[in-house]
Amino acid sequence: MLRFSFHSPNPNHPSAKTLDPSPVFRSVKTFAPATVANLGPGFDFLGCAVDGLGDVITLSVDPGVAPGKIVISSISGAPKLSHNPLRNCAGIAAIEIMRKLGVRSVGLSLSLEKGLPLGSGLGSSAASAAAAAVAVDALFGSTLTAHDLVLAGLESEAKVSGYHADNIGPAILGGFVLIRSYEPFEILPLNFPADRDLVFVLVSPDFEAPTKKMREALPAEVGMKEHIRNSSQAAALVAAVLQGDARVLGSALSSDVIVEPKRAPLIPGMAAVKVAAMEAGAFGCTISGAGPTVVAVIDGEQQGKEIGDRMVEAFLVNGGLRAKATVSKLDRVGARVISSSNQ
Amino acid sequence: MLRFSFHSPNPNHPSAKTLDPSPVFRSVKTFAPATVANLGPGFDFLGCAVDGLGDVITLSVDPGVAPGKIVISSISGAPKLSHNPLRNCAGIAAIEIMRKLGVRSVGLSLSLEKGLPLGSGLGSSAASAAAAAVAVDALFGSTLTAHDLVLAGLESEAKVSGYHADNIGPAILGGFVLIRSYEPFEILPLNFPADRDLVFVLVSPDFEAPTKKMREALPAEVGMKEHIRNSSQAAALVAAVLQGDARVLGSALSSDVIVEPKRAPLIPGMAAVKVAAMEAGAFGCTISGAGPTVVAVIDGEQQGKEIGDRMVEAFLVNGGLRAKATVSKLDRVGARVISSSNQ
Repeated sequence: MLRFSFHSPNPNHPSAKTLDPSPVFRSVKTFAPATVANLGPGFDFLGCAVDGLGDVITLSVDPGVAPGKIVISSISGAPKLSHNPLRNCAGIAAIEIMRKLGVRSVGLSLSLEKGLPLGSGLGSSAASAAAAAVAVDALFGSTLTAHDLVLAGLESEAKVSGYHADNIGPAILGGFVLIRSYEPFEILPLNFPADRDLVFVLVSPDFEAPTKKMREALPAEVGMKEHIRNSSQAAALVAAVLQGDARVLGSALSSDVIVEPKRAPLIPGMAAVKVAAMEAGAFGCTISGAGPTVVAVIDGEQQGKEIGDRMVEAFLVNGGLRAKATVSKLDRVGARVISSSNQ
Repeated sequence: MLRFSFHSPNPNHPSAKTLDPSPVFRSVKTFAPATVANLGPGFDFLGCAVDGLGDVITLSVDPGVAPGKIVISSISGAPKLSHNPLRNCAGIAAIEIMRKLGVRSVGLSLSLEKGLPLGSGLGSSAASAAAAAVAVDALFGSTLTAHDLVLAGLESEAKVSGYHADNIGPAILGGFVLIRSYEPFEILPLNFPADRDLVFVLVSPDFEAPTKKMREALPAEVGMKEHIRNSSQAAALVAAVLQGDARVLGSALSSDVIVEPKRAPLIPGMAAVKVAAMEAGAFGCTISGAGPTVVAVIDGEQQGKEIGDRMVEAFLVNGGLRAKATVSKLDRVGARVISSSNQ
């Protein structure tokens, strides 16, 4: 089992005090996928990456930028995002990696193409942070461990959306990731068998989820009975991932009795959307992250469109919300370099 | 993934209304292993079977017993147990299976050799029920499913020690078992890889655990933070079982922040016993079932004796209790026939 522990750093880890690496490329382009956190009873400790949707970053050595510094030269797809790297999730993650590598002699410029809408429950900030962390590392020869990359992304998440790793973990590593503990920081990648398919129907309504209300809706205490029910379903969910059983995975994900019942009423039409997904053949359905995107699970793409159409219809009829459906497979790779150049 | 669902009975299931099977043997002898329930954060939904310790049942066709009836002819190792089959966990499970099979024409006599002490936290009642259920089924040709056997055992547990399947599940099936839900009744066998070793050090003190106090010590409500911590560790425990990682398994089992902190103080010396186990090299340590047995986990038998000695010493020094240590491997088989005869 792969494990990352905060207290066991890679002995080959470059030290910021001694290294000032030279870039290996003049420019790299990276992609990081959308992620679905929580997964029902996996609230705050489980997440997975989904393909197709994500953010793209182009990072270049830029003689016009002061050595050791980074600027954000352009952002497309999200006009509201700050160009100040200290206030931008991609910028924060990039700076964190530059610091780890000890980059002092070259300046960098970063261009961000947001493929993910902000605040949709699809790990938008984590995708930007993951793509940025991998880009900086790749530009200097890919010397860091996955653990380093996740920790840099976690710093970014902490400043932008809260200290939680259930989006940044899978955004970097791909597949399913279990956040086991924060002190020490330990995450377990969970391998869904390569010969099985897992398909997600992601339906995002035109609705700004009330983040504060979503957080306040969480109960401070849970009944012992509900604790046991959710724990056993979370355990079943992990077993289903490792055993490649999409049906059990879906029904476990669908069985949260603690968080979903509190949050679903804050998303207009959500209850009906879940019913529609299940009636159309989904194995399970819940809120993606803190919403408002709703995620349904199935084991093949052929049913995905029909399920998505029904969910979109239910959002319109029952919640008065327009929505968009995407059918995605499990992304098993996570953040990656898609091209590099020395031109 | 093997699943047993209450609502999907085997279509080949013999119906009590039509069948009155003939015995295939005159006598069978069965064994069922001890079980460790709860496993820390798996409270009330995880359990596993351990080898070496267990109960033995000899079941015979007896012309002296009224057709369709069963008598308990002898019990060794537990003078307090009732010989009335309706008040004995082996008797109740046997009757349940006789009813399922529709046994009407032959009478049976059952002899029980208790290898497990009562009230020790090692699934004593479940072992008797499991051995009895398998014995009756075997005597009539082993036609029932594991699901039938577990349900019969669960009936027995419900009458004797509470409606919980985290002992009877692994006592019947062997290995690790996750009780996913009771309505519908669904359990997931979790396969610890065959090529890996898993060893349990079981230390039972001379102490009658105050069952009522143990139950009352459970909090009615759990903080959200503790819920998430325990759930993620239970999820890690399941991942460790399926991935065969004894070290993660041990540390997850050792990390319960909800039940163990409340119950441990009711077992004199328990805290020191846990420290002693960890200092001697155990990967993890917690209460077995509702105690008073304490279980430590390791990946080889060689260290088991030393760890057991230290734990026994800690019970004596810190709790004033004499204790006995047993080193057992994971039992992967569960309840089984050890001999059969037509003599």
